Amino acid sequence: MQIALDAMGGDHAPGPIVAGAVQAVAADPGLHVILVGDRVQIEPHLSSAGANAGRIDIFHCTQAITMEETPVLALRKKPDNSISRCWQLLAERKVEAIVSAGNTGAMVAGGLRLRRFLKNVKRPGIAAVMPTLRGPCILLDVGANVNPKPSHLFQYGVMGSIFARRILQREKPTIGLMNIGSEEQKGHDLAKETHALFNGSALREQFIGNVEGRDINQGNCDVIVTDGFVGNVVLKVCEGVFDFTVKMIAKDVIGKLDVERGRAQQSLQDLVNRYDYSAHGGAPLLGIDGICIICHGSSGDQAIKNALAVAARYASAKLNEMIVEELEASPEITGDEE
Amino acid sequence: MQIALDAMGGDHAPGPIVAGAVQAVAADPGLHVILVGDRVQIEPHLSSAGANAGRIDIFHCTQAITMEETPVLALRKKPDNSISRCWQLLAERKVEAIVSAGNTGAMVAGGLRLRRFLKNVKRPGIAAVMPTLRGPCILLDVGANVNPKPSHLFQYGVMGSIFARRILQREKPTIGLMNIGSEEQKGHDLAKETHALFNGSALREQFIGNVEGRDINQGNCDVIVTDGFVGNVVLKVCEGVFDFTVKMIAKDVIGKLDVERGRAQQSLQDLVNRYDYSAHGGAPLLGIDGICIICHGSSGDQAIKNALAVAARYASAKLNEMIVEELEASPEITGDEE
Repeated sequence: MQIALDAMGGDHAPGPIVAGAVQAVAADPGLHVILVGDRVQIEPHLSSAGANAGRIDIFHCTQAITMEETPVLALRKKPDNSISRCWQLLAERKVEAIVSAGNTGAMVAGGLRLRRFLKNVKRPGIAAVMPTLRGPCILLDVGANVNPKPSHLFQYGVMGSIFARRILQREKPTIGLMNIGSEEQKGHDLAKETHALFNGSALREQFIGNVEGRDINQGNCDVIVTDGFVGNVVLKVCEGVFDFTVKMIAKDVIGKLDVERGRAQQSLQDLVNRYDYSAHGGAPLLGIDGICIICHGSSGDQAIKNALAVAARYASAKLNEMIVEELEASPEITGDEE
Repeated sequence: MQIALDAMGGDHAPGPIVAGAVQAVAADPGLHVILVGDRVQIEPHLSSAGANAGRIDIFHCTQAITMEETPVLALRKKPDNSISRCWQLLAERKVEAIVSAGNTGAMVAGGLRLRRFLKNVKRPGIAAVMPTLRGPCILLDVGANVNPKPSHLFQYGVMGSIFARRILQREKPTIGLMNIGSEEQKGHDLAKETHALFNGSALREQFIGNVEGRDINQGNCDVIVTDGFVGNVVLKVCEGVFDFTVKMIAKDVIGKLDVERGRAQQSLQDLVNRYDYSAHGGAPLLGIDGICIICHGSSGDQAIKNALAVAARYASAKLNEMIVEELEASPEITGDEE
């Protein structure tokens, strides 16, 4: 398994990015990572690779897109940037997967530019794994497609369902549509038309209708479909409220304990690490011909290591083959206008 | 101050609704509540009103809209429903304010039907008060207007800012636009056009640009403007993640303590009560000629009592007069197409 890793992407790149790669190859003898970025900045962090150094290469490039840059402009202005070089390696089939903790917009735009979508896929979508009271669920799209059509959301249901089946081990995943009420006629036109599309499709048995914001963490649903604007806001609201609640409890509940304060602080920290939204191994951009994993900008070495492992599992589960197969079985969706 | 209270609205109506009214008139000698609903169901709960019974009246009506009904259909099918009767009392100026914990969609639709908007207001919006690390902030719209135009969102900024000034005592409230990134060109067309509208207006000094989902609870902003679809989802996600996080911590952190477990459980319960999203006294529908407060369906007596108090403060702060004045000073917005 060959993976290109954007060594320049992330709030603290390249240090923790390279460290994550070193740990990943040490853990998986079948893994080969190509670090894409500035050789001079990468090399000092490679010293700890030891005996596994042979499975880490550098693909040198001279430019990097920062987190603040406008994706499309940056891609145009900096032709030798690490994100474009990752996509290039994927397009040339020199790697099976690419991973980046850099500018998400640039990562998506780089993929849209190449248009290397799986057969019949209209628009790729980013799938985020969310913690719930009953194990993880999938929320998609969380930012690739802010103006989707109903058929795009339907395809996210197809792709998310396959992801839930193969990666989260749900036998027959339930699919819900993010909306502002449970009744069928709720919401804007996009929601109503998508609702009708699911109900008239082969997925109707898995489709449980509308779900609301408070259903996500209840674990009432395995796959939640929404547009990239709402999904991205929701993802960040989840992070924010989690952080807010933990801080308030740390101060007003645990901070006021006496003898067991230290113990409670330690269990709280363990829980935070377990639910850390940035450590879940990244979010796949589903619908790409290849594997593309997008990580949180704040990803540390552990998150990068996890993301590389997710990419490897994604490949061995043959997700893309299943997506192509299932979309071919939905002619009413694949045939309509984009 | 005369307030019409929908006695039939809410998950457990009319019991806690009537109890909330009884407590509110006991606490505020200037308050007069008209309970709108089925006299036979209301009267048994009035026995505790005692000496204050003279300031509680019943406006009898025979029908009630349930939480599950489709708003527009229900309003048409049930002409003598308690929500329509509340609006009627407001329209006839028999009350200054109306309060309901019933079907939110029916409450909003009832108001849109009458079209008793304040001068120059294009579309009313629901403002929710959200807890943050630095005191409450305002999020609007959270469900009245799922297909807004940029000018609607701009007006939400005007109205929310006045609410923050007069009710939350912020001298010069900051206004943010909910978006999926901080850069000006982020998001869908609605976000981009609204961004430009604020920057070209008299509010530009208060406008801090885009805010993201994780900014809400940080308290980085006093007023956050968004469309009713996103706002409603966000509000419910906040409730859901808060509940999820508290449950996980109660089980995995506090549940594992020994000697201080009971004490920690009690402080956690206190914190939950303090941040209970359903107990904040309801959300005003801003832009109405009159005062309309929408409460959470699960509202208990305390929440109803708070909502009645909020309605009274809203009236005494002369919010509506200020909204009219400020909108008259934004001719570029009030003059354009709806």
